[in-house]
Amino acid sequence: MSTETFQVQGMSCGHCVKAVTQAIEALDASAQVHIDLPSGRVEVQSQYSRDVLKRAIAEEGYTVA
Amino acid sequence: MSTETFQVQGMSCGHCVKAVTQAIEALDASAQVHIDLPSGRVEVQSQYSRDVLKRAIAEEGYTVA
Repeated sequence: MSTETFQVQGMSCGHCVKAVTQAIEALDASAQVHIDLPSGRVEVQSQYSRDVLKRAIAEEGYTVA
Repeated sequence: MSTETFQVQGMSCGHCVKAVTQAIEALDASAQVHIDLPSGRVEVQSQYSRDVLKRAIAEEGYTVA
């Protein structure tokens, strides 16, 4: 388990937060996801690599800085 | 069937459009829903009354003008 922090652009509402959270949880059911919508900060505790987590977020249609 | 048009505030992304569409379709499976996200214009063809449709949209957390 390691913690990765991402800056995500394009999340505009609670549904977006849910979509990103669910995308990560679908990948890693044991992941812990914390998202701050106003700042776009996504913190993920997971066994998966940063690149894999980043791709899961991007596949939901968001830009990961 | 009649057509009602609503001005809805707070829809910010495609998930919001989907949430509103699904809320109306859950109420009336035969409804036709057209939503223009940039303008917030929601057009519904349904057998349900304007008040009932309005409440379904509001219950998703959006403001109906």
